[in-house]
Amino acid sequence: MDDPLDTLLPAGAAGPEMRWADGAGRLLGITVRELGDGRALATMLVRPDMVNQHGVAHGAMVFALADSAFACACNSRGILTVAAGADITFVTAAHVGDRLVAKATERTSFGRHGIYDVTVSREGTVVAEFRGRSTAPRRWG
Amino acid sequence: MDDPLDTLLPAGAAGPEMRWADGAGRLLGITVRELGDGRALATMLVRPDMVNQHGVAHGAMVFALADSAFACACNSRGILTVAAGADITFVTAAHVGDRLVAKATERTSFGRHGIYDVTVSREGTVVAEFRGRSTAPRRWG
Amino acid sequence: MDDPLDTLLPAGAAGPEMRWADGAGRLLGITVRELGDGRALATMLVRPDMVNQHGVAHGAMVFALADSAFACACNSRGILTVAAGADITFVTAAHVGDRLVAKATERTSFGRHGIYDVTVSREGTVVAEFRGRSTAPRRWG
Amino acid sequence: MDDPLDTLLPAGAAGPEMRWADGAGRLLGITVRELGDGRALATMLVRPDMVNQHGVAHGAMVFALADSAFACACNSRGILTVAAGADITFVTAAHVGDRLVAKATERTSFGRHGIYDVTVSREGTVVAEFRGRSTAPRRWG
Repeated sequence: MDDPLDTLLPAGAAGPEMRWADGAGRLLGITVRELGDGRALATMLVRPDMVNQHGVAHGAMVFALADSAFACACNSRGILTVAAGADITFVTAAHVGDRLVAKATERTSFGRHGIYDVTVSREGTVVAEFRGRSTAPRRWG
Repeated sequence: MDDPLDTLLPAGAAGPEMRWADGAGRLLGITVRELGDGRALATMLVRPDMVNQHGVAHGAMVFALADSAFACACNSRGILTVAAGADITFVTAAHVGDRLVAKATERTSFGRHGIYDVTVSREGTVVAEFRGRSTAPRRWG
Repeated sequence: MDDPLDTLLPAGAAGPEMRWADGAGRLLGITVRELGDGRALATMLVRPDMVNQHGVAHGAMVFALADSAFACACNSRGILTVAAGADITFVTAAHVGDRLVAKATERTSFGRHGIYDVTVSREGTVVAEFRGRSTAPRRWG
Repeated sequence: MDDPLDTLLPAGAAGPEMRWADGAGRLLGITVRELGDGRALATMLVRPDMVNQHGVAHGAMVFALADSAFACACNSRGILTVAAGADITFVTAAHVGDRLVAKATERTSFGRHGIYDVTVSREGTVVAEFRGRSTAPRRWG
């Protein structure tokens, strides 16, 4: 109940692979896995309803995947943490049918703040680079 | 057919208000309106499937709205333009039932590049500040 | 003595134009002027010791000017505020002899945080766009 | 003469440690060393003329050091490359007498573009995290 990961992961999740229980995670079919030590992995299949008429995935869908990995990684320390902001650079287009992988790692932490780097890739090719800024609120209601 | 706005707006759209025809726009219920001169307005209702168990909208949903307004604004000049990257700062939480508005304006343009500022708000309260970096590819296939 | 602007402005400064009293401001010859209401203006002449062998100013010199205007603007409210971070996009090169002007305006503020936009220009031509993230520390020692 | 590193490094530099020959590098006493493979190291001593009246180094001085390492790293490939932009997060204050070290590594490259991460530290403590965006102009005059 009090565990901050409750906001990200389904109650009763048992295995290392689990579907992100939140609305947005379900909506986009994002599966996220905490790797411990400020790290996480998330995957998403690019569906026809995530692309434009050229079959190119919207940057916001790529951002959503990176953001999910970021959220899971920055909450892996057991202190409830939120995203204060993020920067993303789009490297190459993703297309329908691509299975994207986002790998998040903590770059540094200081006080209640942290910086996390997330690389989104498709079979080893970088699709986007994301850097998230996290903060742990003093109170949570 | 050759108009760059075809990537963003539905063929045959007649009025000033139109639903974003793309998959991702439909998926999230984003309505976008070009205002001309490098400006655009987009709106989105925060639905139950966009929030976490606390009823707080995922940052990625707010990003998606801002990104839609950005895409429409930077394509309003008649030259096909893509998002090279973006930075977002989350100011306050959005909740289920909030109707969010994103207003995009061109800050500057140089050569094939542009910078667009997008403010996402809810009844006048700022929810997020987004700055997008656009670029016009030399070829488009 | 206790006024936060003491960190930015010279004691006894009387007129609207004053030289930034800090070491770095003096080192780079930056003149900064508070405009009130979260706004400030700073100017700097690009000197031969600020450029590379092609006569092009280092981005860091342009950043320094923008950062000075940002610091002055975010401290204009009377609450000691520091830079948490910043993003800069370089638009065009500045050269020896250019008089650069940086104009900072508060974009939004929330709690102890703020976002400031700074445009650096040379006779009306944009040289760089800077967005600073400020925060007011709880204690200052 | 035509070597792009001429813009960063002194003609005739022989050893692995060299003083940055450019005006700004000399002005700030920055020593930069190319490590090869998209990596570089730069150092700077925080002098009294780089700090405010509290003895705290200006963020712009920390940025300048990071930017120097970034410039050297992104030019280590033999193709003339410039900074298109950068983001910096300030982690902790640097003070007079601190010897700062900036270590730059290429994160990814795509077409004429690259992303470089630079960590600025003081005896192992992170002072700032910088991410630079590079681009190789088509012509250079």
